[in-house]
Parts: sequence; structure tokens; C-alpha cells
Amino acid sequence: MLLGSIEAGGTKFVCAVGNEDYRVLEKATFPTTDPKTTFAQVIDFFKKFNDLAALSIASFGPIEIQKNNTRYGYITETPKKGWSNTDFVDPIKKALNIPVFFTTDVNGSAYGEYVLAQLFNEKIQSLVYLTIGTGIGGGAIIDGKIVGSQGHTEMGHVRVKRHPDDLDFEGLCPFHHDCLEGLASGPTFEARLGIKGQDVPKDHPIWDIVSYYVAQAAIQQTMILRPDNLVFGGGVVSEPFLEKVRRDFAQLNNQYVQVPDLTTYIRMPRAKDNGSATLGNFALAFHELGK
Amino acid sequence: MLLGSIEAGGTKFVCAVGNEDYRVLEKATFPTTDPKTTFAQVIDFFKKFNDLAALSIASFGPIEIQKNNTRYGYITETPKKGWSNTDFVDPIKKALNIPVFFTTDVNGSAYGEYVLAQLFNEKIQSLVYLTIGTGIGGGAIIDGKIVGSQGHTEMGHVRVKRHPDDLDFEGLCPFHHDCLEGLASGPTFEARLGIKGQDVPKDHPIWDIVSYYVAQAAIQQTMILRPDNLVFGGGVVSEPFLEKVRRDFAQLNNQYVQVPDLTTYIRMPRAKDNGSATLGNFALAFHELGK
Repeated sequence: MLLGSIEAGGTKFVCAVGNEDYRVLEKATFPTTDPKTTFAQVIDFFKKFNDLAALSIASFGPIEIQKNNTRYGYITETPKKGWSNTDFVDPIKKALNIPVFFTTDVNGSAYGEYVLAQLFNEKIQSLVYLTIGTGIGGGAIIDGKIVGSQGHTEMGHVRVKRHPDDLDFEGLCPFHHDCLEGLASGPTFEARLGIKGQDVPKDHPIWDIVSYYVAQAAIQQTMILRPDNLVFGGGVVSEPFLEKVRRDFAQLNNQYVQVPDLTTYIRMPRAKDNGSATLGNFALAFHELGK
Repeated sequence: MLLGSIEAGGTKFVCAVGNEDYRVLEKATFPTTDPKTTFAQVIDFFKKFNDLAALSIASFGPIEIQKNNTRYGYITETPKKGWSNTDFVDPIKKALNIPVFFTTDVNGSAYGEYVLAQLFNEKIQSLVYLTIGTGIGGGAIIDGKIVGSQGHTEMGHVRVKRHPDDLDFEGLCPFHHDCLEGLASGPTFEARLGIKGQDVPKDHPIWDIVSYYVAQAAIQQTMILRPDNLVFGGGVVSEPFLEKVRRDFAQLNNQYVQVPDLTTYIRMPRAKDNGSATLGNFALAFHELGK
């Protein structure tokens, strides 16, 4: 029996086929062009596998994941050109004729990290995964279930207290200006400094501004969920950056709530090569099969 | 069969006995003096009921609810004089010899509102209850379970973006200064204006400052949990105040995430006479019995 994974991003679609041990057997990447072209490539890839039993999609959003909604399975109002209001699940399901699970990219990653923690025999019950890249998004897992009964979470769009050295920056979010995503996503580095994020020296003070915002997000997630782990992924995140986040988190918490040792509580993803979502998809596809 | 409820507050303990329909049969209130005296009164009250099968405690905090912790069942480091590091569950359990469930006051209220929604045949899966009074605290229920695997939630201690007309107020939280509780709890009215909260005219601009902070809390809870309902209780909350919160929530969300109609999404507790926690306790005691 084989399991399928589609990690659908704004730039590329990563497709993978794995076995019941969630090991990747074959992988292919297709550019995100228009739905018709990209879906055709994806379907061609999976059609090669006769044993494919189920598949899970972890997609960029916003998407509709409420099964009772008429637009269930759609990418809804996305800024990605050509992709707004696109039925994603139905064409895949019809072409492959197997059970298909549908969730957000970050929920897929969160689930992958949750599964990996179980495989590592860590007794965690809950976890938040926050990605900080072009945008900011987060997913939470509690007791093996994805959190969100009114739809998927949108953890990048919370407000934060402004850093005193960052009061003049308006923020980049087209909806909220200075929400977390508007202040701490990758593009905010270039917007503030005129230098691309990856070229900003590691000792530049902007890292302390951004880590202050990310630490506030970590505080919010901690106070609202009291999860066992906070996992941070995405292009902005590195171990030195998380050191700053841990420092600011400790200062903001001020020993108020007990949290695990911060080096294990606030951590990078455990899956190698950005593989959290692929692993999560395999596990979610497997669960979908059991339904 | 009878079920017991202790709603333990910093001022008073409300004890109640109910039947399997969660109807209150008898109720008594005792002042919160010292643990020995108050516990003795509580125990005397419940000892009258031979049929008492189980009991649930919804307590002021912080408390230890992790069963694997040596201080499970304790009120831990509370500012309430004489109550720090007090074993709550053990003396009650020993005296009454019945199963005892232990959670926070707000988790009890959240659970009560969740149960009430089910009784009203509303198909909600999740809910947040936030109380805004002397302090601010919140609890969340997802699929009938209380959220929080590292301990209980502390929803009052998140940071918020400062209101432009409130930049000079330092905030009252002894741990965090200008966290939500430090900026929006009942005592902040008197700290800012020299007038007690209940005497501040309803058209005073301070209500717009406080509603802006509470709306941000509602945004955080929405983005992080996507729950079906946000219920607001406590002395600061009134229907006109929630109207302001709804207005600010709509402005902050800017139609980004879909939420139910705001008059049903952001609402007052449904239980009468502050009865949410008592009802929640009856249901939690009943569940504890089934374990």
C-alpha cells in the first residue's frame, strides 16, 4: 500500500509517494503555474502508482476545509494570481479515485512534527507549528487532532505590541498592516532596510525587533493553548534567531507560567529537508483511509 | 445520585449540590478566609448529602492540574494571602471519599457554557470563555475536552498592541505590566481615572480603549483556535460593552477570516446568575465518575 502527499506552495508543488512507514519512495516537484497545468502534472505523477491507497494535500491558502461548506476543497480568496476560487480536491479525487484529505500547509507540517515526536517516543499531546517566511502561518495539534472548528487557524494575523525601535514601520499586511505577518514575515526585512532578508547580517538590530514579535506570538500560543512544543519553520528561522526568541519569551513570560526547558520547548522542525508536511500528509492520508 | 460543585473564588466559595440533570438542589456560600476554616465549612456542607457521588472544583489560581506533578491538586503561587501552596483536592477527597475533578474557575465556566450549548442543541465543537473582572482569565473547550496539556491556560497574560490614547498607562500586572490583564481588568479603570469601574459612565472614552484590547484578545483566540463561540463573563462585561468589542473585532479582522454572525459569536454567558461554573462542575463531576 502506498500513500501520497501534495505539498502545494505558491512557488512549487512537492509531490511524494511513501510507504506505510512514511518513508518517501519517490518525489517530484512542479512549478505552481495555473491550476489546469499544475494539476495535470500532479495527476500524471500519481497515476504511475497503482498501489496508491490515499492521498493528503497540504495547501497554501486560504482554503475551505469545512466539509459542510459548498466550497469544501477549494483554494478561496488567495492573492496568488489565477488560483482564487479553485477547486483543488475534486479534480484530484476524480482523476485518482482514492480518499483525499485536505488541509493547510502549516497543518500538514504541524501534523508531521507531531507524528515525528510520537515516533521519537516523546510523550507530547499537543504542538504548534509556526512558519515564518513570505507569510506567517501556524497550525496546532491537540491529542492527534488538527485544531480549528470554524476553519483553519490563521496564526500570522494576530496583533502584537510594537517594538519601541519599530514604531515608524507601517507593516506589510494588506489586510491588517501591523499584524504579526505584517511586521515579522520575510519581506519586512527588505521593506525596512532595502536589503533582502537572507543578506541581512546576523548581528543587525532588526533581528531583535523581529524576535520580539515572534516571542509575543509564542507567548500568545502558550497562554491560549499551553501546548507541549512550539515548532518554528520557514526561511526567517534559524537556530541563532530562535535563541533570540527564547530570550525574549523568557523576558515576556517573566517566570509567570511554567514551560519546559526553552531549548526543547521552542525549537526547529525535526523533519529533515523541510519534510514535515510530507510526513504529515502520509499520516493524514493513512488516517483518511481508516475512516 | 447527586453531584457536587465548588466554585472557589478569592472572595467566596460557592458550593452546590445538583442532580443528574445538572439542576441545583442546594447551594451555600462561604467567605474565603484561611484554607482550614473554609475547607471545614465546605466539607460540612457536602457531608449532609449521603448520595453525593462525585464532585468538581473550579478554583482561582494559579493551580496545578497536571496529574503527574507532585503538587497536583494544589493552589500554587497565588497573591491571595494564606493560600499559596495549599493542597485543595486531597483534604476534600479524604473527607468525602468520592472522585474529585480539579480545574480552574474559567475552565469550569467554559465547560458549563459548552454543556449548555449542547443542551440548547447548538452544534458547537469548541468555545472560549474569557472572564474580565478583578483579573482576566480564559479557558477553552474543544470537542468536550479542556485545552491545555502543559497546565491550564492563562489567556489574560498575552501582550496587545497599545491604544494610541493609552500610551501613558503603565498597566497593573505585577508580572507583565501591560499585558491584557494589566490593561483591561476591572482595577485598571480606577487606576486610570480614580473612579471605580462600576461608577464610570457608559459613554466614557475609556470603554473604547478597553474594548480595543479585549477585541485583540478575541482576534488572538480566533486566529489561534478558530472556535465556534467566544463567551465573555465577569464584572467588566455588559451587552453594551460587547457591542464595542464586536465593532473593534470587525475592524481588526477586516473581513480576513470568516466568523459566525458577531452577535452570536461574541456573546455573554448563557447560564443565569453566574451559574456557568456550577453547571460545568456538575458535568465534570459526572464525567469523573465515569472514568
